[in-house]
Amino acid sequence: MSAKESKKTYWLGIDVGATKILAVVYDQDFNMLGSKKRKTKVELGQDAVVERVLKTGHNALNDAEINADQLSGVGIGCPGALDLVTGTVVVTNNLSWKNVPIQKILEKAFGVPVAVTNDVDAGTLGEYVHGAGKGARSVLGIFPGTGIGGGFVYEGKILHGRNSSCMEVGHIQVLPEGPLCGCGRNGCLEAVAGRLAISTAAAAAVLRGQAPWLQEMVGSDPVNIRSGALASAVENGDAVIEKLIVDSCNHIGVVLGGLVNLLAPDIIVIGGGLAEAMPDLYKKSVWSAMKPKVMDALKGTCEIKIAELKDHAAALGAAASVMKKGSL
Amino acid sequence: MSAKESKKTYWLGIDVGATKILAVVYDQDFNMLGSKKRKTKVELGQDAVVERVLKTGHNALNDAEINADQLSGVGIGCPGALDLVTGTVVVTNNLSWKNVPIQKILEKAFGVPVAVTNDVDAGTLGEYVHGAGKGARSVLGIFPGTGIGGGFVYEGKILHGRNSSCMEVGHIQVLPEGPLCGCGRNGCLEAVAGRLAISTAAAAAVLRGQAPWLQEMVGSDPVNIRSGALASAVENGDAVIEKLIVDSCNHIGVVLGGLVNLLAPDIIVIGGGLAEAMPDLYKKSVWSAMKPKVMDALKGTCEIKIAELKDHAAALGAAASVMKKGSL
Repeated sequence: MSAKESKKTYWLGIDVGATKILAVVYDQDFNMLGSKKRKTKVELGQDAVVERVLKTGHNALNDAEINADQLSGVGIGCPGALDLVTGTVVVTNNLSWKNVPIQKILEKAFGVPVAVTNDVDAGTLGEYVHGAGKGARSVLGIFPGTGIGGGFVYEGKILHGRNSSCMEVGHIQVLPEGPLCGCGRNGCLEAVAGRLAISTAAAAAVLRGQAPWLQEMVGSDPVNIRSGALASAVENGDAVIEKLIVDSCNHIGVVLGGLVNLLAPDIIVIGGGLAEAMPDLYKKSVWSAMKPKVMDALKGTCEIKIAELKDHAAALGAAASVMKKGSL
Repeated sequence: MSAKESKKTYWLGIDVGATKILAVVYDQDFNMLGSKKRKTKVELGQDAVVERVLKTGHNALNDAEINADQLSGVGIGCPGALDLVTGTVVVTNNLSWKNVPIQKILEKAFGVPVAVTNDVDAGTLGEYVHGAGKGARSVLGIFPGTGIGGGFVYEGKILHGRNSSCMEVGHIQVLPEGPLCGCGRNGCLEAVAGRLAISTAAAAAVLRGQAPWLQEMVGSDPVNIRSGALASAVENGDAVIEKLIVDSCNHIGVVLGGLVNLLAPDIIVIGGGLAEAMPDLYKKSVWSAMKPKVMDALKGTCEIKIAELKDHAAALGAAASVMKKGSL
């Protein structure tokens, strides 16, 4: 123990999203020593948001009572298209960032090695090293939210495309003649089973008078029909809402069945607000739809789990990613 | 050079297929020093075929004028379900092998480390280290033949499932109501675009009098309508045969477009007899179908190449796999 104590190191993980910035200080065993959460305020513009990221990082260090010179590294998870070689956010619609050399900026601000990772990849890595996927050889992460993101960690490494992005699970076409997707194509998984699809269909159910609990609780504006409200409606007997969720899980399950045949992950981790608000329903429904699509040779090799780290997955994964960078 | 010469090492790669066994001796730079090919003769039974594998390996050593005690390792590529931990062929329909501890058998016979690899994985690794994928970070291999096999090598490592198998590209469903596949489901890529599908459709074209060149050359028995005959028919103006090939490439391209969105490989290597007999037609047709299915963010990141190592890909990859085993 004392040998380990004497080697204690500190790592800062930052998760930058469209609505919030979260910074967490960890030791090498992923014990959380301090943290800070702040609204992103995208409307303030790129430079101000970068400032807010730095400030949030320093606040977390203060909270942990750690100085920047005690840090071993900073990891950051960002949405959008990244240049992993230079650690630049090339473009991200959510943050309105364009060509932000975030790695250099953080290196200068904290004086330590920095790793830049896609936020979904960071979330998957977080669950792999210290969450629902702990101990597995390979983990496929899928995060149904407004979009549906995916990530794959294999023997400790995040699978990257040449321009960082890959595992575009949300843009697998499930209904060739299906609804229009944000990407401009039709019937992508995201357009069929993402939160926008569910919330708008739920709004229609409210307007048809088929979802009394939801109507009472939040009304018919999809912007208010979020994961918690949907979960509550299911729990309180809005059967149509439950059917919407199950239908969306069916689509996710079919896609995952195909992915098991391709990637044969040990564990599939389902994260994001919807699955975390309705863990049993998601796990059961996705599994039922997935099972018949898995080839005989691969049956029984893969388990579905709900994410464990919740909001902290990407920050922890970002920290893990800079720890790994140091050790490779 | 002399330092390298003095460190010269010798490696035996063996590819066991349903029709032939190929053994090749390589040095550490994949120069071929000797080889032996022999018919598999599955009908002789499991023990006899194992004997033939050993004999073929020893013949290759003789051909290379290398003694077994000069070898650094033996790699073998086998079809079927493998237990990679023990190096056992659990079951393979093609060879009628069941629970053959091929790693132990080869270790005993040659007295060196042995690596057992799935044959398609070995072929992909071969193309990655010394063929069409040389120098790439990641290579997706697809081998349309009687079946359609796939493999993925990422930063030097073959992607494995828990029971070895994964990348079951041939069993991605492309036509939900499509023709029956050998796996018992309908409309798998293999059932739509594999050689059996093409050969039987070509046989029908012959019987309808629509493929005069093919008819003249080989008649209407699908067993005789092999890659070379199909290529020759295309070249000599059997337009219906060309359409069959292009249609099959369309299905392959659509599947590959989805795989680019998931895996973002640097290079896709298409191998197997069909693509090697009609390289330009395959490359062009697959590319045209694939391109519109690739997401904007990933456009231009991936290249399609035809396999370069031909029959030797799996033997070379098997040798590479035992070299890597030694170095990890």
